[in-house]
Amino acid sequence: VSDPTLLPELDDQSLDEFVRFACRLAELAGRVILPHFREPIEVANKAGGGAYDPVTIADRAAEQAIRDQIARTYPRHGILGEEHGRRDGSDRFTWVIDPIDGTRAFIIGQLHWGTLIALNDGVRPVVGLMSQPYTCELFVGTRRGAELRRSGAQARALRTRRCERLGDAVVCATHPAMFQSRSERAAFDLIGSRARLVRFGGDCYSYCLLAAGFIDLVIESGLKPYDVQALVPIIEAAGGVITTWSGAPAYDGGAVVAAGDPELHRAALDILKWGLA
Amino acid sequence: VSDPTLLPELDDQSLDEFVRFACRLAELAGRVILPHFREPIEVANKAGGGAYDPVTIADRAAEQAIRDQIARTYPRHGILGEEHGRRDGSDRFTWVIDPIDGTRAFIIGQLHWGTLIALNDGVRPVVGLMSQPYTCELFVGTRRGAELRRSGAQARALRTRRCERLGDAVVCATHPAMFQSRSERAAFDLIGSRARLVRFGGDCYSYCLLAAGFIDLVIESGLKPYDVQALVPIIEAAGGVITTWSGAPAYDGGAVVAAGDPELHRAALDILKWGLA
Repeated sequence: VSDPTLLPELDDQSLDEFVRFACRLAELAGRVILPHFREPIEVANKAGGGAYDPVTIADRAAEQAIRDQIARTYPRHGILGEEHGRRDGSDRFTWVIDPIDGTRAFIIGQLHWGTLIALNDGVRPVVGLMSQPYTCELFVGTRRGAELRRSGAQARALRTRRCERLGDAVVCATHPAMFQSRSERAAFDLIGSRARLVRFGGDCYSYCLLAAGFIDLVIESGLKPYDVQALVPIIEAAGGVITTWSGAPAYDGGAVVAAGDPELHRAALDILKWGLA
Repeated sequence: VSDPTLLPELDDQSLDEFVRFACRLAELAGRVILPHFREPIEVANKAGGGAYDPVTIADRAAEQAIRDQIARTYPRHGILGEEHGRRDGSDRFTWVIDPIDGTRAFIIGQLHWGTLIALNDGVRPVVGLMSQPYTCELFVGTRRGAELRRSGAQARALRTRRCERLGDAVVCATHPAMFQSRSERAAFDLIGSRARLVRFGGDCYSYCLLAAGFIDLVIESGLKPYDVQALVPIIEAAGGVITTWSGAPAYDGGAVVAAGDPELHRAALDILKWGLA
């Protein structure tokens, strides 16, 4: 395809089919991951030079199971995964996967982690899923809406809350040390100093709680495409906005800001632009 | 009682009775709290002077339900609760309660919060419970052992893990701004800089994960007795140590350090003493 922006939109039936398939992938990943949760597990360090980037057999096996299932069902689709890299497809679609977003939380037994699965149509993510198998929570987003499904409970439509003023906002980030430069950190701290409440620790879970209307801003940096693509359809269908700190689409990761209220998003960008290199 | 250290130990039968009663209290609190979780809820601010200390109807109603049940079953027992204060009893026992430890996490829909229930025998907490009703997790500790009970799963004995060296340790605190002075914060940061991993966000949940062997150090400050008494029997029965930063019993709160490994606890105290006023 020479100009991907000319790609036709997916029809509703295909979209539904892909959502059902993505849910099957999430279920599959949960079956692989859960036997390792809160069990003694070998943690390897992917990072060099004194840094720490943990990965476990649960991450690797879950992504492999997802990749195998995609290859069987949609052999022409591409795959981009955190643990096993990119496999180009022969048509427009790519599955973008983080088997465990929040591996640090996972290895210490906390609950704010999840499996991220996105389907990118060649331009943007059109299906987004976050699955927390231990709590049986599944956040799903497409242009047709966003909802939280929990086994044994009714599906619940996700809707961000109105919050125009920074002084009323709840702001989240996974860790204060995730910012990539002094100016990034200072810009985050400035926003935090004017907010009602700042909380750390959350990974993908914070973005889903923003979609659900309980958090107003998530501001992070150093993200990869697979950290963010699954979250975009969930947040946008819930009424929120997610971009880079300079206001560009967030699909490629980097420094990202999500807001439940578009007005608050504008106010945050006005500060965050000063944190950019 | 003139010298409370001369009080006889509880016999096993009475201890079991109190544990069963504490579990009933936790269940009762969960029934009051859960209908408010992730629902629009009015959040009052208990703090003055620009500070923020949120409280909700869920906190207040859950504590009231617990207090009423205690007054009916053990009218001679004292009660100390976060929301409704102290009621002296006419015998040695006092129930020490935080209906929702981690109210900030609760109001933004996160999962690391819980109901804390301790029974103090006049000297020390002898029964400790942490209940997370959304995930149906109940951490229970007495001198006879500590376990995690989850509905639908087998009870699991809690056991801290060995971790002697700070360089191998996972360190948690609820929030970097919880430290009460520059030297407290600097001492925490020094420990964090030498640890394998530091994570924020956790409240009572972090202490229970330490008892379960997934976190090595929890270092916090500004705690109240009801934030900590329920956690002491859980941590100690699991093989861990919890004291103030100066090594005294942690029952009264303040600056607290919990370690899974007694050796690591000693190493932490050796740094934390420099953070004391």
